[in-house]
Amino acid sequence: MSKEICSRTQDYAQWYNDLIIKGGLADYSSVRGCMVIKPYGYAVWEHIKEVLDKEFKRTGHQNAYFPLFVPKSMFEAEEQNAEGFAKECAVVTHYRLKGDPVHKGKLIVDPDAKLEEELIVRPTSEAIIWSTYKNWIQSYRDLPLLINQWANVVRWEMRTRLFLRTSEFLWQEGHTAHETAEEALSETTQMLDIYARFIEDYMAVAVVKGVKSDSERFAGAVQTYCVEALMQDGKALQAGTSHFLGQNFAKAFDVKFADKNNQMNFVWATSWGVSTRLIGGLVMAHSDDEGLVLPPKIAPMQVIIIPIFKSAEEKQTIDITVHQLMQALANLGIRYKYDDSDKQRPGWKFAEYEMKGVPLRVAIGLKDLEKKQVEVVRRDNRTKQFLPLDQLATSLSNLLDDIQQAMLNKSKEYLQDHITRVDTWDDFKKVLNQKGGFVSAHWDGTAETEEKIKQTTKATIRCIPLETPLEEGKCIVTQKPSKQRVLFALAY
Amino acid sequence: MSKEICSRTQDYAQWYNDLIIKGGLADYSSVRGCMVIKPYGYAVWEHIKEVLDKEFKRTGHQNAYFPLFVPKSMFEAEEQNAEGFAKECAVVTHYRLKGDPVHKGKLIVDPDAKLEEELIVRPTSEAIIWSTYKNWIQSYRDLPLLINQWANVVRWEMRTRLFLRTSEFLWQEGHTAHETAEEALSETTQMLDIYARFIEDYMAVAVVKGVKSDSERFAGAVQTYCVEALMQDGKALQAGTSHFLGQNFAKAFDVKFADKNNQMNFVWATSWGVSTRLIGGLVMAHSDDEGLVLPPKIAPMQVIIIPIFKSAEEKQTIDITVHQLMQALANLGIRYKYDDSDKQRPGWKFAEYEMKGVPLRVAIGLKDLEKKQVEVVRRDNRTKQFLPLDQLATSLSNLLDDIQQAMLNKSKEYLQDHITRVDTWDDFKKVLNQKGGFVSAHWDGTAETEEKIKQTTKATIRCIPLETPLEEGKCIVTQKPSKQRVLFALAY
Repeated sequence: MSKEICSRTQDYAQWYNDLIIKGGLADYSSVRGCMVIKPYGYAVWEHIKEVLDKEFKRTGHQNAYFPLFVPKSMFEAEEQNAEGFAKECAVVTHYRLKGDPVHKGKLIVDPDAKLEEELIVRPTSEAIIWSTYKNWIQSYRDLPLLINQWANVVRWEMRTRLFLRTSEFLWQEGHTAHETAEEALSETTQMLDIYARFIEDYMAVAVVKGVKSDSERFAGAVQTYCVEALMQDGKALQAGTSHFLGQNFAKAFDVKFADKNNQMNFVWATSWGVSTRLIGGLVMAHSDDEGLVLPPKIAPMQVIIIPIFKSAEEKQTIDITVHQLMQALANLGIRYKYDDSDKQRPGWKFAEYEMKGVPLRVAIGLKDLEKKQVEVVRRDNRTKQFLPLDQLATSLSNLLDDIQQAMLNKSKEYLQDHITRVDTWDDFKKVLNQKGGFVSAHWDGTAETEEKIKQTTKATIRCIPLETPLEEGKCIVTQKPSKQRVLFALAY
Repeated sequence: MSKEICSRTQDYAQWYNDLIIKGGLADYSSVRGCMVIKPYGYAVWEHIKEVLDKEFKRTGHQNAYFPLFVPKSMFEAEEQNAEGFAKECAVVTHYRLKGDPVHKGKLIVDPDAKLEEELIVRPTSEAIIWSTYKNWIQSYRDLPLLINQWANVVRWEMRTRLFLRTSEFLWQEGHTAHETAEEALSETTQMLDIYARFIEDYMAVAVVKGVKSDSERFAGAVQTYCVEALMQDGKALQAGTSHFLGQNFAKAFDVKFADKNNQMNFVWATSWGVSTRLIGGLVMAHSDDEGLVLPPKIAPMQVIIIPIFKSAEEKQTIDITVHQLMQALANLGIRYKYDDSDKQRPGWKFAEYEMKGVPLRVAIGLKDLEKKQVEVVRRDNRTKQFLPLDQLATSLSNLLDDIQQAMLNKSKEYLQDHITRVDTWDDFKKVLNQKGGFVSAHWDGTAETEEKIKQTTKATIRCIPLETPLEEGKCIVTQKPSKQRVLFALAY
């Protein structure tokens, strides 16, 4: 009856793909590595955007829009950044097609329309933005400059997965300029906190906040802060990053300001972003073998109402109650849908909205109405209960709050249960292979050891957690002294 | 004292550019033909998006997102469409850069990373969307399919102007699929009406609704509906289009549906869009030689409050009144700013916000407070008045309504005064050269005559107006019979 999806234990990757496709979030496209975000998936993104955009504005940021293309020479200006992205970018070389003289009706690239300088489709916008900031920043009066952009970016990925890694994706990128290093650092951590709070409070996904190791750091950054979440297969997902860029881009693009004493200084910078990848994390963190499980605060539909009737008369009676309920739900700002189409049977609808992860399902039949009650099923734990018609909208609203909280609690417990402290190399490998999750271990701080661990186990340092106390210890590989445990994991 | 801008009579094009740059709406970028939309300009776009998005959703549309790239072969599938855009598109041919072996630190396109098939950066998304709809549409149950996308598109323009014509621009594009031609046509005109109403009610710009002639029609459409506005220099601006695509794209991409009798039919299609070009029209329709004049419903700031003080003590007294006013304005949902910075003098601020087109300026000094009043200046007609503090927020709110209405009335009058009926070729040329605006004339309906008029005068048929009565007449050029007057104009 229901669309079939693969179970998690059978094939986790297939389960994930089934959820995305059959849950109606996204679809493959005819363009290699690019996906189509379907209306249901895009509605999730709209909710994410709405909440974050409000937070950005509350903290003084404004939105703007910069060009899609970056001239190659500008791309080269900040060397680290350029090297980091050169291997995976889409390059525009021509600006015209023309009729194919050999095959009528076909088009070929017009060789006479070659660009003097190639354009890179932005993989991120530091270069184009900092070349612009040079004209906008003259004095301390122009600072801080707090700008965010909602945009599409392209990174030519060889192995792609819907939402998690696609050649084109949607994101927001904040780019700020400050008078001092302290102010820029404080902006960096402020935005990290906004991401962490959003992912926990709205997406109901527990996260660890931390700092990247040198080798995992964003090219061009001095320090990369990140939020890391854990998926149900024990692999980590980087959910958002906030970079302290120091004066790297200011120097590359010669952006100086006159301070209050009229001294010229390079400005200090940050950049920070989250992307449609968040939707992949949302799906993998909560869903089960019956389909998606969406947290109420992000779900495009929070309540689905399904009538159970055998005749038009019965339906009319049900309609009266439902219309009152819909009005009451609307007054409470709850997103609902009344699926009274007669194209499908109730059983089909139950399975369909279960697949789509709608937090609450309300079924209304005549027998229920006689008892002045309705049947309500929670999607998160699939429990069924009967709720009185009296004050029903309020009861549903409270249930939505409960679900949101329960999903976060579950995610927090899962995260805590999957941060495993190990002190030997053998235990490290054993935990990584058998239990999965984050492995908390001492590391000597060198890129060589990090690389060796990666080569042997595929695990990377996800982050040096911000909230872990210092602790004397020995590196699990080299036995050299270490002052703090870091978190390793296999990752998406 | 104020930033200088060129006057309209001196150099209209320069006046327009000055407004955009000095009003802080946009900036040139280092990428040929692409602009940077600055926070103030982007805030205007956000208001446009917010209102239109609500209208689209109210009429049953959902947002989705399709890939930026269109494979060349897919681009070719609908011939008319492909030919229309082939001459002005950005072509991605490679997916990687590599270090330049000759110039250290420089990058070159990696010849080993040539794409098997070139990708076109979307100039519009019919091709990519219809290749996707093929998988989404099987039966009448899947129809109508009502989807909109907010996105960036690229058309490689040789001569660009900020907002009016840029190589990359932001827009929305609706793409719908229907069972019948009638339903698709009714969707086409419904969306045209939404555009017309938005442009009049929110942007306060009067428009003419009409149909394009064959030669001005969108490539790939059966019929193109449009809204045309008139700028202050007498030139027309196409502000939005809504296309009835017939079955052209359904046939090109083989999109059929089983109807209720299980017969297979090609679906009927529409597409419709408005872009950041609207901002250019907004600027040119209303502004004056002192700067921008923004209609309250679209203005990012509706009220600017400026304190007039000589000492910190005076400022404290003023602050008390202003904070009450701000609270009252916030309660009414009015967008305001209190510019109490001491970096600039009041006179500078007056000029600055006049330049930025803020609809109402409230100046508050001690002398005013003693009289329990404030000085209020309207941006649209620059009249000054003193308003009592009592119920001030409500008075300002009413004034904003007055301004909105006055701006629309002015625009309507201007439009009516600049639709000139002519019956001879001499009068046609005279009116076009001396008075400008729309010239309402009989035309024989042929592309040859249309082309001849264009070659001689540069005027094009802007539209065949929807609301003009049929009328027997003779073509101004060929004297052949004609049944309806059409509107000619020079256009952006």
